[in-house]
Amino acid sequence: MMIPYQTLRQRITSAFESSTFLFPPEQLYVPINYALEQSGKRIRPILVLMATDLFGGDVEKALFPAMGLEIFHNFTLLHDDIMDQAPLRRGRPTVHSQWDINTAILSGDTMFVIAYEYVAKTDPVLLPHVLDLFNDTARKVCEGQQYDMNFETMQAVTIDDYMLMIRLKTAVLIACSLKLGAIIAGASATDAEIIYEAGIELGLAFQLQDDYLDAFGDVTVFGKTIGGDIITSKKTFLYLKAVEIARGSDLELFRRLLHDPGVTQTEKVEQVINLYRKLKIDDLTSTEVEYHHNRALGILKTLSVDPFRTSELILIMNKMLARDR
Amino acid sequence: MMIPYQTLRQRITSAFESSTFLFPPEQLYVPINYALEQSGKRIRPILVLMATDLFGGDVEKALFPAMGLEIFHNFTLLHDDIMDQAPLRRGRPTVHSQWDINTAILSGDTMFVIAYEYVAKTDPVLLPHVLDLFNDTARKVCEGQQYDMNFETMQAVTIDDYMLMIRLKTAVLIACSLKLGAIIAGASATDAEIIYEAGIELGLAFQLQDDYLDAFGDVTVFGKTIGGDIITSKKTFLYLKAVEIARGSDLELFRRLLHDPGVTQTEKVEQVINLYRKLKIDDLTSTEVEYHHNRALGILKTLSVDPFRTSELILIMNKMLARDR
Repeated sequence: MMIPYQTLRQRITSAFESSTFLFPPEQLYVPINYALEQSGKRIRPILVLMATDLFGGDVEKALFPAMGLEIFHNFTLLHDDIMDQAPLRRGRPTVHSQWDINTAILSGDTMFVIAYEYVAKTDPVLLPHVLDLFNDTARKVCEGQQYDMNFETMQAVTIDDYMLMIRLKTAVLIACSLKLGAIIAGASATDAEIIYEAGIELGLAFQLQDDYLDAFGDVTVFGKTIGGDIITSKKTFLYLKAVEIARGSDLELFRRLLHDPGVTQTEKVEQVINLYRKLKIDDLTSTEVEYHHNRALGILKTLSVDPFRTSELILIMNKMLARDR
Repeated sequence: MMIPYQTLRQRITSAFESSTFLFPPEQLYVPINYALEQSGKRIRPILVLMATDLFGGDVEKALFPAMGLEIFHNFTLLHDDIMDQAPLRRGRPTVHSQWDINTAILSGDTMFVIAYEYVAKTDPVLLPHVLDLFNDTARKVCEGQQYDMNFETMQAVTIDDYMLMIRLKTAVLIACSLKLGAIIAGASATDAEIIYEAGIELGLAFQLQDDYLDAFGDVTVFGKTIGGDIITSKKTFLYLKAVEIARGSDLELFRRLLHDPGVTQTEKVEQVINLYRKLKIDDLTSTEVEYHHNRALGILKTLSVDPFRTSELILIMNKMLARDR
C-alpha cells in the first residue's frame, strides 16, 4: 500500500510544527518564523516523501531534506517579494512590508542557510549527490527569477522564452523534489532521471494552470485576487498567446487596455478577460496544461516500478492541476 | 618546507582568473563577475590552503572549497553593502549602486549558491563534515550582521555585545578557513578545534585592528578614507571604549560631536580622533589587538605539529595585524 497524500501532508505539517526557527537575535529569526508558519500547501516536500515511498524508501529518511526544499522555496518567495514589491503573500503582509527590506534580505539569506542545514541531514553516502542536485536547482531558480525580471522591460518575449523561464523558476524545483525522494529511496539513476523529467512537465503544467486561474479561476477557491497578472501587465502564457494570435482591432484593443492610463483596473481586467475568451486563450491554455500533464503521465509509465505504486503521485498531480484548486 | 604565502596567494589568484562566472542571463552573472574580479587580499582562501599545508595535506584538494569560502565572503559583502547603503567597495561602485537593489539581491543569492557549489567540490568522504562547518559559519555570519544592524539603533551597546558581534560577523569565517584546511588535510579533531580557536582570536584581533586603522591608519596604505566609522557614528571598539571611559567634559564633547548637526564632517573626524588620543583609546585598542594576537599565537603552540610548520601562518597573521596593512 502506498502512503496516502493526506498522511504525508500531515507528517510534513507536524514536522514543521515541532521544529523551532526561533533563536537570538530575534530581529533575524522572528521574520523567518513568520515566513515559515504561513504554511502554503507544502506541495514540494510532500512530493519528496511521495517519491521516496514510490521507490520503496523510508519517508522518515527523506523528512529533513524535504523540509530543506520547502524552506528554500519559502526563501525564494521572500526575496522575490522584495524584488516584485509585493505587499501580500498568502493573505498576510510580506516580510519586507511587515518589517523592512534589510530584514527581508538578511532573514532570507539565513533561511537559505537553514535550507542547506536541513538538506545536509541526509544519509552521508547520498549527500554529494543530493547536494549537487540541490545546488543545481537553486542556481536555476535564481536564473529563472532573473529572466522573469528581464521580461518586465523586454518588448519581444516569445512563448519559448516564457517556457524556458517557468522551467527554471518553477518546474526544476518540482522536478528536484521528485528526484530527491528517488535518490533517498535508492532508486536507479535512470529512474531518478525519469521522475525528474516527469517533474519538469508537471511543473510546467502547474505554472500554466496558475496563469490560467489568474484570469479564469474561481476567486472563492483560488485564494488570490482574479486578474492580478492582468493589472500588472505580467507577460504570462495568456498574455503572450494573445499577442501571438490577436490581429487587427483585437490586437489594437489589447495594446490599448495594457497601456492606456485612462482605463481603470476593473475595466482592464474585465475587458482583457473578455478578449482572452474571444481569442480562445482559455481553451488554448487548458490544452497546453493537458499536454504537459499527459507528458508527465506518459513519462511516469516508463519507470521501472509497478504502475500501481504511482497512484498517489498521479492523484496529487491531478490535485495540483485541478480547475478549482 | 612550508609553501610560502606568496605562492599560495598566486595559486588562488590564478584559480580565480581561470574560472568563469559568466553564463546566461548576463543581467545576473555580469554583476557576479564584477563582484568577484575586484579582488581583495584573498586572505580567507589563503588561510585555507595554509592550514592544509600546515597539516601536511595537498593544497590542490583544498582549492575549490577555499574558493567557495571566498565567494561566500564576497556574497556577504554584496548584501551587506545593500543594507548599509554603501556607495563604494574597494574603490569601485557597489553592485547595487552600479546596477540596482534587485540585481544586487539576486546576484548575491546566486553567488551564495555558487559558493556551495565550490564547497561541494570536496572529497565526498569529508563533505558532511565540511558542509556542517560551512553551514554553521554562514548562519553565524548572518547573525553577526543582524547584531551589527541592531547596534545602529541601540543605545546601550557594551564592549561585550560588540565582541560577540565581531566574533560572529568576522571571526568565525577566519576560524572556518583554518579549520576547513585542517579537515581537508585530515588533521585530528582536536587539532581542527585548536586551529579554529586560534582563528577566532586572529579574527577578533583583525577586526579590532580594522577599527583602529579607521581612526589611526595611514590613508595612503589603508585604502579607505580615514574616519569613515566616525562620520557614520558607528559603534566600533573605539567608540564604545570612549563611551566607557570618558567622563565629564570629555563625555559631553563626545556626545556633542556625535549628535550636533552643526559640526562638519571634517571637524567631527578631527576632534573625535583628538579625543580618542586624549583618552588613550589608540593604546587601549592596540593592547586589545595584541592580547588577541598573543592568544592566537599561544593556542597555535598547543597543536600537535612541529612548531616550524606554523611559521607561514604566523607570518600572515603578523601581516594581517600590521599597522600599515
